[in-house]
Amino acid sequence: MSTAASRPQLAISERFHAARCRTQALCAPLTPEDMMVQSCPEASPAKWHLAHTAWFFESFILSEFLPGYRAFNHEYSWLFNSYYRSFAEFPEKKLRSSFSRPGRDEVVRYREHVDEGVARVLEVNPDTEVLRRVELGVNHEEQHQELLLTDILNAFFTNPLRPAYLSAGPCCADERRASAPGHVEFSGGLVEAGMSGSGFCYDNELPRHRVWLEPYALSDRLVTNEEFAEFIADGGYERPELWLSAGWDAVSQNRWKAPLYWSKRSGEWSLFTLRGEMPLNLMTAAPVSHVSYYEADAYARWAGRRLPTEFEWEAAAEGQQACGNLMDSGMLMPAPAESCGAQESATDEGIRQLFGDCWEWTASAYLGYPGFEPLAGSLGEYNGKFMSGQMVLRGGSCATPQAHIRSSYRNFFGPETRWQFSGIRLARK
Amino acid sequence: MSTAASRPQLAISERFHAARCRTQALCAPLTPEDMMVQSCPEASPAKWHLAHTAWFFESFILSEFLPGYRAFNHEYSWLFNSYYRSFAEFPEKKLRSSFSRPGRDEVVRYREHVDEGVARVLEVNPDTEVLRRVELGVNHEEQHQELLLTDILNAFFTNPLRPAYLSAGPCCADERRASAPGHVEFSGGLVEAGMSGSGFCYDNELPRHRVWLEPYALSDRLVTNEEFAEFIADGGYERPELWLSAGWDAVSQNRWKAPLYWSKRSGEWSLFTLRGEMPLNLMTAAPVSHVSYYEADAYARWAGRRLPTEFEWEAAAEGQQACGNLMDSGMLMPAPAESCGAQESATDEGIRQLFGDCWEWTASAYLGYPGFEPLAGSLGEYNGKFMSGQMVLRGGSCATPQAHIRSSYRNFFGPETRWQFSGIRLARK
Amino acid sequence: MSTAASRPQLAISERFHAARCRTQALCAPLTPEDMMVQSCPEASPAKWHLAHTAWFFESFILSEFLPGYRAFNHEYSWLFNSYYRSFAEFPEKKLRSSFSRPGRDEVVRYREHVDEGVARVLEVNPDTEVLRRVELGVNHEEQHQELLLTDILNAFFTNPLRPAYLSAGPCCADERRASAPGHVEFSGGLVEAGMSGSGFCYDNELPRHRVWLEPYALSDRLVTNEEFAEFIADGGYERPELWLSAGWDAVSQNRWKAPLYWSKRSGEWSLFTLRGEMPLNLMTAAPVSHVSYYEADAYARWAGRRLPTEFEWEAAAEGQQACGNLMDSGMLMPAPAESCGAQESATDEGIRQLFGDCWEWTASAYLGYPGFEPLAGSLGEYNGKFMSGQMVLRGGSCATPQAHIRSSYRNFFGPETRWQFSGIRLARK
Amino acid sequence: MSTAASRPQLAISERFHAARCRTQALCAPLTPEDMMVQSCPEASPAKWHLAHTAWFFESFILSEFLPGYRAFNHEYSWLFNSYYRSFAEFPEKKLRSSFSRPGRDEVVRYREHVDEGVARVLEVNPDTEVLRRVELGVNHEEQHQELLLTDILNAFFTNPLRPAYLSAGPCCADERRASAPGHVEFSGGLVEAGMSGSGFCYDNELPRHRVWLEPYALSDRLVTNEEFAEFIADGGYERPELWLSAGWDAVSQNRWKAPLYWSKRSGEWSLFTLRGEMPLNLMTAAPVSHVSYYEADAYARWAGRRLPTEFEWEAAAEGQQACGNLMDSGMLMPAPAESCGAQESATDEGIRQLFGDCWEWTASAYLGYPGFEPLAGSLGEYNGKFMSGQMVLRGGSCATPQAHIRSSYRNFFGPETRWQFSGIRLARK
Repeated sequence: MSTAASRPQLAISERFHAARCRTQALCAPLTPEDMMVQSCPEASPAKWHLAHTAWFFESFILSEFLPGYRAFNHEYSWLFNSYYRSFAEFPEKKLRSSFSRPGRDEVVRYREHVDEGVARVLEVNPDTEVLRRVELGVNHEEQHQELLLTDILNAFFTNPLRPAYLSAGPCCADERRASAPGHVEFSGGLVEAGMSGSGFCYDNELPRHRVWLEPYALSDRLVTNEEFAEFIADGGYERPELWLSAGWDAVSQNRWKAPLYWSKRSGEWSLFTLRGEMPLNLMTAAPVSHVSYYEADAYARWAGRRLPTEFEWEAAAEGQQACGNLMDSGMLMPAPAESCGAQESATDEGIRQLFGDCWEWTASAYLGYPGFEPLAGSLGEYNGKFMSGQMVLRGGSCATPQAHIRSSYRNFFGPETRWQFSGIRLARK
Repeated sequence: MSTAASRPQLAISERFHAARCRTQALCAPLTPEDMMVQSCPEASPAKWHLAHTAWFFESFILSEFLPGYRAFNHEYSWLFNSYYRSFAEFPEKKLRSSFSRPGRDEVVRYREHVDEGVARVLEVNPDTEVLRRVELGVNHEEQHQELLLTDILNAFFTNPLRPAYLSAGPCCADERRASAPGHVEFSGGLVEAGMSGSGFCYDNELPRHRVWLEPYALSDRLVTNEEFAEFIADGGYERPELWLSAGWDAVSQNRWKAPLYWSKRSGEWSLFTLRGEMPLNLMTAAPVSHVSYYEADAYARWAGRRLPTEFEWEAAAEGQQACGNLMDSGMLMPAPAESCGAQESATDEGIRQLFGDCWEWTASAYLGYPGFEPLAGSLGEYNGKFMSGQMVLRGGSCATPQAHIRSSYRNFFGPETRWQFSGIRLARK
Repeated sequence: MSTAASRPQLAISERFHAARCRTQALCAPLTPEDMMVQSCPEASPAKWHLAHTAWFFESFILSEFLPGYRAFNHEYSWLFNSYYRSFAEFPEKKLRSSFSRPGRDEVVRYREHVDEGVARVLEVNPDTEVLRRVELGVNHEEQHQELLLTDILNAFFTNPLRPAYLSAGPCCADERRASAPGHVEFSGGLVEAGMSGSGFCYDNELPRHRVWLEPYALSDRLVTNEEFAEFIADGGYERPELWLSAGWDAVSQNRWKAPLYWSKRSGEWSLFTLRGEMPLNLMTAAPVSHVSYYEADAYARWAGRRLPTEFEWEAAAEGQQACGNLMDSGMLMPAPAESCGAQESATDEGIRQLFGDCWEWTASAYLGYPGFEPLAGSLGEYNGKFMSGQMVLRGGSCATPQAHIRSSYRNFFGPETRWQFSGIRLARK
Repeated sequence: MSTAASRPQLAISERFHAARCRTQALCAPLTPEDMMVQSCPEASPAKWHLAHTAWFFESFILSEFLPGYRAFNHEYSWLFNSYYRSFAEFPEKKLRSSFSRPGRDEVVRYREHVDEGVARVLEVNPDTEVLRRVELGVNHEEQHQELLLTDILNAFFTNPLRPAYLSAGPCCADERRASAPGHVEFSGGLVEAGMSGSGFCYDNELPRHRVWLEPYALSDRLVTNEEFAEFIADGGYERPELWLSAGWDAVSQNRWKAPLYWSKRSGEWSLFTLRGEMPLNLMTAAPVSHVSYYEADAYARWAGRRLPTEFEWEAAAEGQQACGNLMDSGMLMPAPAESCGAQESATDEGIRQLFGDCWEWTASAYLGYPGFEPLAGSLGEYNGKFMSGQMVLRGGSCATPQAHIRSSYRNFFGPETRWQFSGIRLARK
């Protein structure tokens, strides 16, 4: 990752505290019991997110860089390791919901203990590597903030009482219609991809390198719920010719008939959101979300289009202003193009909803860039070892912290994954 | 089940309140998070036990017999149904750990609502069927008290921190040695089996009927930890000729090497109990517990013995005084024969540890008695529909409420089950 | 098993040759490719049956009792072992269909080699144990003859071309109607069960012992296809209250809607048999076959009856004349009661179809009799190690060799098993 | 695919007959029983390959383009469909080993019937589309020739008798040592990839398009058995840090310890080949084969190298002469670099073993080229629908027909696949 060396330790200290506070603030609407739920294989309990993000600072910074640091509890180094094999073995992921102890309060104390340690190390040992790692830890914390929201959405969806994480807000009443679908042409050619400049990025965004692109066009907005409902009504989930072979297997085995959080009740679609169950208003411009790569790909085939590659997307997005996190602006669902467009100050002709609405599935497999070098040591397991079987998503969703959104960011999930805020942008030749 | 008609409604009301209080008392050492854990397929979260036992009274009594009863929450009739198909569908068992809402406090309010209802129905409508069902509900509650303890033991064992449900008590220091193995002869012949008399029993204990027994002998105490350790040391888990075919498959697939809660640390066995992890003291008379039918059967074959049938056991136990619940007497582990023997006032020659130590696997499959009639209606699903693929256990364990122990009681589990307090008594020709 | 000591070696030699020839005769309609198919987990390829039955004589007799015996191929001692762990490991059952070599012709040579060996050992070493084991081997061979037929029926059913093992015969045209359902009363009391007399039996039929039976009645014939079709038409497969809990799980997971070889085509049932696919003529007295224990149990509950125990069945059947094998008399399907009744010389009042129609599911779990002793050594694995999780069937089917049918015979399969010719007799009170 | 229009129908007719004959010649060493085996999920029985390749011509040519064509057997249109959903449903792949009928001879008659049909259509209706489809069918036939060999290798490996497909040949004695590892530098830049010129290719090799490559180097030969044995000896299969996360899961679950056909016997490696089991001579230059993508990737990481992308490989291979099929030259194993090098007339400095030794795993996921258009209609299912979850392999193996080898050819398998002749070429920055 690129260095944070030019930033003063003060700034990083403030970012650290802000991030740590925000994680706990996200837990405010949750009961201790809510924080235990692990409702799908992709998800973790909220309490585990709280503890694991502390573990990350403890394991990668305090143990190594804070002289005389005393572990809060030696067992935690094992208990809250997610997947770093170079440390030691770790508990099977599915066991996370069995760990009632330590309880939430104890985990909060663990966090405080770690917070004090990080404050001290920034005081006594603010060398470049420490600053670099604190910055990485802050970004790691932000990733888990997003996961915490997607996981709690799934947890509450699994509960037949369908509780709401937050009460219904003003955005729910946003009833603007979608604009007619348009597109923006790009000339392609030899472009550069990957992080440039001095800001933070992950190792998998580097090195910046050249890519050849043929001319292409991207839709100027995401596919809407209404458009996706047309796909369903046209038998989209019943026509194998629209699907990849593995996608059709997924449809058949999981009996998919709609995006993850859609339910049909008395002939009408309803949608489950962090604000609870609500009628799915097809009249608005809200983009479809919680679809898998397979569904995105099938939709594109049905529409006579294709998905963009990650490099087509990045070339179009580079230089665009990343919009604010919808969560922080009181929203909790992918927003109509116009509302986010406002934040992006997009003109009518421009490309909209690039950032902070839905992660956009791309047609690119998640692989290392030419010359990719994972971080040294255990941190090398952060990203590199997942480079098989996954597809790249770009742009960030309404649950992504604003600081975490940039044009070079590469998210990645298996093609069957639906629990993220993941949507569709179309491309064409 | 036999009728409670001769008992006054006052007595049942007192038993009802005692049982309801005891369930909640058992939860006192648990945090809200502990009450969410479901750590093996056989187990349920403690909070679910709290709610389901309320559901039972609501569904089988209040809905039907209390005029004007208002459900606490209509969703609960679905949410806390365990397996009664005649009511409606119910959630998959494995989802129970996903139900963070209603939280513990809400469940306690649900229980209070139901308690008031039961108090009223006993006042306004104390007819025979109501009394009979309240008595059944009390017994159902007692079954779940036992399950709650076995489930929390498993939950805490699954947690690598190995928390203790209760602090170590005096019983842990009981170091009496086991007596030499003896046996008691029985002449068999035409005996009667099944509940007699006027007390409560389940439908599967009826009708009382005649059974022919050849002469047999039973060990006068349970197999001890020390004896079972000899089986292990003699390669018991590595010799297929000692095992049923399905048992050997279970050993191989699950890599069983010892009873469920035994662990080997630095060459010494330790034992996980409701009082936490402790060294396994092989010098005491404590019986081996948490073995499957397969292990009990293999041990018996290794020892040149066999397991008793349920009728051999019942004929030997009938007329014996059931001992008190060890839990209530401050114990939380299967006790040495002598300590429980004292409660049973067994003489040196008598048969000991029949009641309240470990459930004893028998060589009998769980099937209906000749002339078996399940209860009418939905309650018929209570016992009868499980009459395939399970073996009968007799006697009751240290986690079984005293009122729930009797010689005709038939417990039943699949032959691979180990999470119960289940042990071994040998028989021979 | 009881001894064959009183029989001359000549007789056993003749029985040996007859059995060996019959096995190969059963393969006559099969191509080498047919003999490779293993179409369900319960089944084995026909070629494997040919080879394994030779292996049995080689392993239990020739290796031990024929001085100077040279193995045909040392690898076969491993390759064709079914499940005898005391010899050595053996191939996973599902691999049997991968063994193209040795080919059929080589297996036939192996059989000839073994036949010569058995002829020699009967000449040079005809001691009691040899005679006993040859008799056991002949019975083993007969069991595999039956399995070969049930396995090839499944193999041809799995093939969408639905080939026929034999051409349609006269029995297919038997259109006699079933008699009205009647029953025969039995007084019960203290009866004896298990093999008596000097004939061959397996270890699991011994010792003969006393059993107490309450008075009971058995249907005088098996449940017919027509009666079972009424159960289906009455929603039998859609009503959970009729089923054991594990049975309902089996119905749901396997989507059972009818017995195994029934198919619905254009609204009419057709039946797949060893004579190929044919319309299911509900007007005849033919018994329903290829149902699981779960289906038999659910049918009985629907009919307001129950299944008999194995002891009720045996007490009724003892002394009855076992009828001839329907296969040898040119039949290949469970026959109407009257046709087999003729062979049994049953009077109108008597109980019919006890032998040689369908195996009859009983309400008894397969367990050892009091005092059960498995055969010594490796042969002890023949029956005893399967005594868990299975139900007893009695009577023998149309595919059972006549010599293999007797009133004390205990067949056993898991309750979900349907590939055998297994049917239903009802009991009451 | 590109057109064959410029070729006369005579030439295609000859190629057709040659291909059809070769398929059956490959079956000459097989018994009817061998042709039934399906020993791993990737494989199909040899008889099925025989039939399916006939089905392909019948379904895509005769049914559509031969007036008055009469199907050999209407059931076959369903029975031998592999995965073309647009025709109709098809049997589950795993059932293929259950289809004993039609037998081999009948399948050969089916092939003759289809051969006559193709001869006629080439006579009466030799239009461009027919020629194009016959050419595609010939290429399809060649693909199945290769699969037939890889499948029979697995079938014979699964058989504990370890039969040999062919007798040991001269190549087995080739004991030349490997050359020291060298590499060849490439300057990269803007290159073209994909089929050019007028020859046959699949739709997934088109369109030819531009790709930007950074400078890179490729090893001048494949990784040898000896080199891979060093990886094993260095704990390669026990060090999670060398593996992708999914790769480590595969190692753990499948207990991989070496390439697929390596076995350790008395401390020495032996290798199973189409010529039977033989000692693995590590002293020769023979390349390692039958490794998964995960193993290739881990080996490269261990060696401090990486795998090439498919475009790096293609740019290096374009213009090189594809060598002859080793099978046809009497070889049946990946050959030492020199022997194949001779065929390639490579100089000492050149890159060797590009074609016809082992398929080479590349670091590229199998995805469509920019502007990819699947064939119209059902044929569009040939390649396109598999574009997820698979990695590209390049070059062709010793089992690949010579006519099937070219620099633009893209083979593809899941990253866990090992039953193909798949090996490793290293790349570096």
